[in-house]
Amino acid sequence: MTGRDAGAPIAPIDPSPVVILVRPQLAENIGAVARAMANGGLFHLRLVAPRDGWPQDRAWRTASGADRILDAATVHASVADAVADLHRVFATCPRPRHIIKPLLTARGAAAELRAIGARGLGCGILFGPERAGLDNDDIAAADTLVRYPLNPAFASLNLAQAVMVMAYEWWVAADETPPRRLLTHKTRIATKGELENFLDHLIEELDACGFLRNLPKRPGMVRNLRHFFERGEVTEQELRTLHGVVTELALGRRQRGRDEPA
Amino acid sequence: MTGRDAGAPIAPIDPSPVVILVRPQLAENIGAVARAMANGGLFHLRLVAPRDGWPQDRAWRTASGADRILDAATVHASVADAVADLHRVFATCPRPRHIIKPLLTARGAAAELRAIGARGLGCGILFGPERAGLDNDDIAAADTLVRYPLNPAFASLNLAQAVMVMAYEWWVAADETPPRRLLTHKTRIATKGELENFLDHLIEELDACGFLRNLPKRPGMVRNLRHFFERGEVTEQELRTLHGVVTELALGRRQRGRDEPA
Repeated sequence: MTGRDAGAPIAPIDPSPVVILVRPQLAENIGAVARAMANGGLFHLRLVAPRDGWPQDRAWRTASGADRILDAATVHASVADAVADLHRVFATCPRPRHIIKPLLTARGAAAELRAIGARGLGCGILFGPERAGLDNDDIAAADTLVRYPLNPAFASLNLAQAVMVMAYEWWVAADETPPRRLLTHKTRIATKGELENFLDHLIEELDACGFLRNLPKRPGMVRNLRHFFERGEVTEQELRTLHGVVTELALGRRQRGRDEPA
Repeated sequence: MTGRDAGAPIAPIDPSPVVILVRPQLAENIGAVARAMANGGLFHLRLVAPRDGWPQDRAWRTASGADRILDAATVHASVADAVADLHRVFATCPRPRHIIKPLLTARGAAAELRAIGARGLGCGILFGPERAGLDNDDIAAADTLVRYPLNPAFASLNLAQAVMVMAYEWWVAADETPPRRLLTHKTRIATKGELENFLDHLIEELDACGFLRNLPKRPGMVRNLRHFFERGEVTEQELRTLHGVVTELALGRRQRGRDEPA
């Protein structure tokens, strides 16, 4: 999950929500935010009163190639200015104060952001400054709060990590990858008939070498082998390899003259 | 989602999987990984051949208080040594090569890690070095691959970001927070009867001031107001505030002598 895609093309997927960094302090973090946004398919960045001004070269250095997001970022004097053209505004808030507002998990927020975007409405997500987070006036500009379920004993997230979790959930909310599958590349999952064919081959050679000569125990031993080979999906290519292993082991045995007479 | 919990107590939640950083390069990243682990309730860190040796003060400086994870981290000469006591090993792998192995999403991996841990088995997750990721020999030591669904045009994750996503999914896999709720603090959601009582008050004052004097339009205007106030959950406290708003507006109007005679 590492490495760099410097200069990789970034294909905007719209309507994606606007990431709004409120009074961000470190340019390095703004760059890391841009990288996380690109990872999750978010492309619109707004900065409210960045502490050290804008642009800052250091941001581009930590963006690992997500330059276009930084190039297109806009600077705003206030949260009100940054959200004026948006229809919905979410605010990330690890410790909701005495506020009466809808509160979403990151996953709940991602689902709602997808639904809001699909309706053609503009949406933004506010992230607070590194040390203090959003203040009460910032949060009052939002219609909805977002709090990630995380270890309550250690809930403070790095700014780019906070954006990463939201960008990841945004991407996954529209992703249909099955949670588990077997990579098979150019081969395919073997059929039960192909597996049975291999097991016949194996047992034939095990009979020939005398491994199964204890006839009362033979059915149980055969079943145990079958249980092992049936446990997971096997590919057709792996079965061919296993056929070869059995053939070569049996052949080697015969060539060394140690095989039992039939 | 920002700020620091320096020195915050970290309560280990076991059985949690071991995070294994393979040939990590930058100590700052190791510290950021520890912080992300603490965020998601992962507490066991192993380092395979860290490039600059171990320990490194710079790691503690970026861990934002997740010191105990770094204090307890162990160093290993090889992946084989780092996984020898584990029963299951997952490998994060953004670009699976010509490998026949089960492939999980981050969410699928989190669910399996929870199930594996519940069976009392030890599990580890391999993360590769910053530039190159895991090599083929590293991956051969794993039984299962993990690939996060992310923007394929920009899939390279910072090391700490990769750990953050996995730690977040690990936490959320055991979290039951509803995706949406209304924060109400010391108040509660109002009942429909309480809302109706407010609407009666509002309409009574609107009748008194003449806002609803157009009798043919009155039913539609009342319905529109009702639609607005019924749209979301309202708290009992907010209704009391709204009662006050209506009373005071009406009173101010009367005191200024501009109210219509009854």
